[in-house]
Amino acid sequence: MRADLIHPERHPADGGTPWSREDFEARLRERGRAYHIHHPYNRMLSEGRATPEQVRGWVANRYYYQIAIPIKDAAVLSNCPDPAVRRGWVQRILDHDGFEIGGVRDAGGIEAWLRLAEAVGLAREEVQDLRHVVPGVRFAVDAYVNFARRAPWQEAVCSSLTELFAPEIHRQRLATWPGHYPWIDAEGLAYFRNRLGQARRDVEQGLQVTLDHFSTRALQERALEILQFKLDILWSLSDALATRYGVAA
Amino acid sequence: MRADLIHPERHPADGGTPWSREDFEARLRERGRAYHIHHPYNRMLSEGRATPEQVRGWVANRYYYQIAIPIKDAAVLSNCPDPAVRRGWVQRILDHDGFEIGGVRDAGGIEAWLRLAEAVGLAREEVQDLRHVVPGVRFAVDAYVNFARRAPWQEAVCSSLTELFAPEIHRQRLATWPGHYPWIDAEGLAYFRNRLGQARRDVEQGLQVTLDHFSTRALQERALEILQFKLDILWSLSDALATRYGVAA
Repeated sequence: MRADLIHPERHPADGGTPWSREDFEARLRERGRAYHIHHPYNRMLSEGRATPEQVRGWVANRYYYQIAIPIKDAAVLSNCPDPAVRRGWVQRILDHDGFEIGGVRDAGGIEAWLRLAEAVGLAREEVQDLRHVVPGVRFAVDAYVNFARRAPWQEAVCSSLTELFAPEIHRQRLATWPGHYPWIDAEGLAYFRNRLGQARRDVEQGLQVTLDHFSTRALQERALEILQFKLDILWSLSDALATRYGVAA
Repeated sequence: MRADLIHPERHPADGGTPWSREDFEARLRERGRAYHIHHPYNRMLSEGRATPEQVRGWVANRYYYQIAIPIKDAAVLSNCPDPAVRRGWVQRILDHDGFEIGGVRDAGGIEAWLRLAEAVGLAREEVQDLRHVVPGVRFAVDAYVNFARRAPWQEAVCSSLTELFAPEIHRQRLATWPGHYPWIDAEGLAYFRNRLGQARRDVEQGLQVTLDHFSTRALQERALEILQFKLDILWSLSDALATRYGVAA
């Protein structure tokens, strides 16, 4: 379902008693059952059944998602009139693009992803020129960015909540890849290590905004739909990879 | 002229030999003749002829411009696919919203403006709730933000080049206000001092992008129109203040 086609009419204001904050959070977390950690392509990657080409295909295509993230986060900033929220959110852009402020230097997540690409045997150029990116990945990622541009910022924030489930998939990669794919330089996995800390901090802000803003039952149901929209984006990205590179049985 | 109504047809690709980089820069700088430093309302302020109400009116209305700036800069980021440019540009958002990274803390330009507001005798609340902001100011500022959202990012960058002229107006305020308006706590002028250094660094990036991108004669002429559009925004802001608060003869 396209989140921008969800009509408020489907969720009338008198749509019932709001769930408690705890119940609402539990219902958001429960959506993790549809996270792409369960997609056959990810299961193949984490269970060591992927060929180098299937690993490279994933890394090169997922790069398109990586470079879209700061654009998406800037769209949130650009729609958000609250400086306190922006002060927290801008950290995501710094994390991905890198920065050097007051003696603190971070090469950034996009650079870390390029190092992962090199570690799996891709040249930086072939990743950066997007030659491997398949149309289905492009459309899914673009749908996410376009949603963030046009939706109220709180909805764009809500759509980021797949981060609730990200630490587990990063830990899974860190735990399983070195054993399954000894041909990948373990240094290249730094991206996943970095994201473990960042995702924890990010999800806290995203969750607070969501729990605060979606305060009626109708809004809470909309939040669940928005999260599902984002889960669909990630799932669809894996579908496109499976179509292009195949999935080992 | 609305910059988003400038049609490329008016500047055909064979519009003549491009100006040299130096000549182009000189033509951009020459537009400073239309900077709002020459507006009667600013002349009144800098020559000590403004009443407390006229000073307060300026500070309270200009606040609407201040809070729009990070929104505008995030729009640039959100339209810019080049991480190197974003790494430079994001500093503007940090400057205005404030940040605390690696032991470096900056309360930010919006906070500095609120302290200026307090120094001229306004309560924070009456500034933050925008009750004093007149429609003409709102429309002019919104036109700037909407242009930055919809224009190619290089055009939005070009529209920031009124910064070429900003250090002079900040220096003028720092030099003349303490003598003319001893009732304003000089601490409140920190915003202008901070911007002296920041504007110098900012204008360098904006100028490089503009000189690089607008490389044909037709594009160079468009850049001049974009700069004029932005000068018109600032001028129009002062017009709206003159209409509301009057201008001493």
